[in-house]
Amino acid sequence: MSLSFQVEAVCGEARTGKLITPHGAIETPVFMPVGTLGTVKSVPQEILEELGVEILLSNTYHLYLRPGVDQIRALGGLHKFMAWERAILTDSGGFQVFSLSDLRKVSEEGVSFRSHLDGSTHFFSPESAIAAQIGLGANIIMAFDECTEYPAEIRRARESMELTLRWAERGKRYFEEHKTEVPWGKAFGSQLHQSLFGIVQGGMHLDLRRESAQRTVDLDFPGYAIGGLSVGEPRELTCEVIAATLSHLPADKPRYLMGVGTPEEIEQYAFMGIDMMDCVLPTRAARHGLLFTSEGKISIKNACYAADESPLDPHCQCRVCGRYSRAYLRHLYASKEVLAMFLNTVHNLSYYLDTMQRVRHSIKLGERAKLHSGVRSTRKP
Amino acid sequence: MSLSFQVEAVCGEARTGKLITPHGAIETPVFMPVGTLGTVKSVPQEILEELGVEILLSNTYHLYLRPGVDQIRALGGLHKFMAWERAILTDSGGFQVFSLSDLRKVSEEGVSFRSHLDGSTHFFSPESAIAAQIGLGANIIMAFDECTEYPAEIRRARESMELTLRWAERGKRYFEEHKTEVPWGKAFGSQLHQSLFGIVQGGMHLDLRRESAQRTVDLDFPGYAIGGLSVGEPRELTCEVIAATLSHLPADKPRYLMGVGTPEEIEQYAFMGIDMMDCVLPTRAARHGLLFTSEGKISIKNACYAADESPLDPHCQCRVCGRYSRAYLRHLYASKEVLAMFLNTVHNLSYYLDTMQRVRHSIKLGERAKLHSGVRSTRKP
Repeated sequence: MSLSFQVEAVCGEARTGKLITPHGAIETPVFMPVGTLGTVKSVPQEILEELGVEILLSNTYHLYLRPGVDQIRALGGLHKFMAWERAILTDSGGFQVFSLSDLRKVSEEGVSFRSHLDGSTHFFSPESAIAAQIGLGANIIMAFDECTEYPAEIRRARESMELTLRWAERGKRYFEEHKTEVPWGKAFGSQLHQSLFGIVQGGMHLDLRRESAQRTVDLDFPGYAIGGLSVGEPRELTCEVIAATLSHLPADKPRYLMGVGTPEEIEQYAFMGIDMMDCVLPTRAARHGLLFTSEGKISIKNACYAADESPLDPHCQCRVCGRYSRAYLRHLYASKEVLAMFLNTVHNLSYYLDTMQRVRHSIKLGERAKLHSGVRSTRKP
Repeated sequence: MSLSFQVEAVCGEARTGKLITPHGAIETPVFMPVGTLGTVKSVPQEILEELGVEILLSNTYHLYLRPGVDQIRALGGLHKFMAWERAILTDSGGFQVFSLSDLRKVSEEGVSFRSHLDGSTHFFSPESAIAAQIGLGANIIMAFDECTEYPAEIRRARESMELTLRWAERGKRYFEEHKTEVPWGKAFGSQLHQSLFGIVQGGMHLDLRRESAQRTVDLDFPGYAIGGLSVGEPRELTCEVIAATLSHLPADKPRYLMGVGTPEEIEQYAFMGIDMMDCVLPTRAARHGLLFTSEGKISIKNACYAADESPLDPHCQCRVCGRYSRAYLRHLYASKEVLAMFLNTVHNLSYYLDTMQRVRHSIKLGERAKLHSGVRSTRKP
């Protein structure tokens, strides 16, 4: 048993659950902050703990380039390297190869690409992407997939989906054969340290998505991700694809929607039955002065906040809203002070984590309401 | 009574003391971190509190340009603006006008200068520099002085010193006439909120320094600063000037040495009898990856730290040394991650504050040893 997942409350399609890893339990639905280079930009790990972050995502592509997988492996793995004792998920590098690197060339074997840092040439295969993730040692690692571009004709989307399926099989085989070669590959209590998730692709074609889901499930992973969404398509289409995919994923396994979204989106998708999400939006937006509040989005650089003594969000309990005024945050941002990044990021993450907490609460209340109404109806004379 | 200062232990020339402001008591000798724009770059105020910072320095020149004195005054003063309830000292802007701005022109009336930000023209007089500092509302504010360049012939140094003395008198008069015009100008318990310190100049000429000290003391300030040092002169000369100046400053008033120094220097000057110091060195060096440790200075960008699992300083109790490795700090710095600034700055400030704590402890122990040896000698038969 590599990972345990228990569904707790269910309401409609939505559910709350507990994902148990050797680095702690995670309440789902969960939003995972992105710590690209082994750091959630500008926020120290102890503050992430204080915010209640139970799992964060780090990028294999970035860590592979800097400081290098061998370096992190020799230093005891990513948890030890970044001094983070809670759970970590790494992506496979596939998405970054497609979005960041130059001159990438996809073949059956894998993808050759040039580093966005220095132009040097590298090659990721379904096997080497898993080898890198074994070396990093995250609790949840991802199969190497091809993120199908949008829009893509059905023929192209099928080709891409088939490639991702073949890669998933190769990645899984490699993982099974090599997962115990690192110190953290040994059983940890009754659990293995690392678990490999498969990724559903298929572009925006519902039939392909259903087929991709079924065939990925046939490969038997402890969790399933939905990739290739939030790539420019309208949100209704995103929702259709999510619904079509979810109906073919097993209810007893965690379902991870990659790379989304706005606060409204993560709330909506969690209510559709998604258990895990990640996105750079709260952290990246924070660094650009875009702040999410219960009263709407705020662009803190706006001059109208220069004399505004109120907190960023009067309904927020975070350390930023508890202490600092909009006027001060505006001054820091306008003066390009580094502290602006920290304070803005802490607030936005807090807002996202609060959003998910409210969602979990609603689902639990919804289940209870459903049960209660059920009880009442059976008691009716 | 605007400020109370009590000398506690005395050992040789050195002393410990307590400086009591309406925003808390400060153990002296004290090192004051520099928060140029109302922020100690990259460190949130609650972490400064945790580090034990009892007073910080902010720069009138910078705040005057951004966000503007009127803005801060309207928002309730600098303490409220930056959400910092402990003590603040502001400099007069004189030093920045001399070191940062273009095309400055000094006259009897004051200094006209161009902003380093946008080239706009401004004018500081001894009166307007005090007016700005009244508007900011720091607990300790400084007279507007001319920082004599180094080297300076005795004739030039005297001219400059005389100008600073005339400006001190004008500034003091302005302060007495206007200090109650702000909400924080009213008595706070038995204390006024703000106190104005005089500044001793005189270049590197000991006779001028003695004369400047005496004539500044004749003007009667609640505390005295030594300006115009650490401007390129050899350290022995710095020490000579400090010693010559200190011998003409009253023992019952706080003595502030402006703009120094390395950890060794602040220790040495504290043992010479200095009560207060400030410097951008720990914070600026941190941002350039230069870290002070009990085992010497470290340039964290050095490749030799890439695989170093040990803490930055094994003898340091700060949150950085308690959690993160040199390898991780090196990775953050090499990757230009913002978190590097925060972690490096927290450590360097911790190192400076620890240094001063050790100095205070030594002075107290020294006084006790002296007393004990005195007791023993009187008991001798």
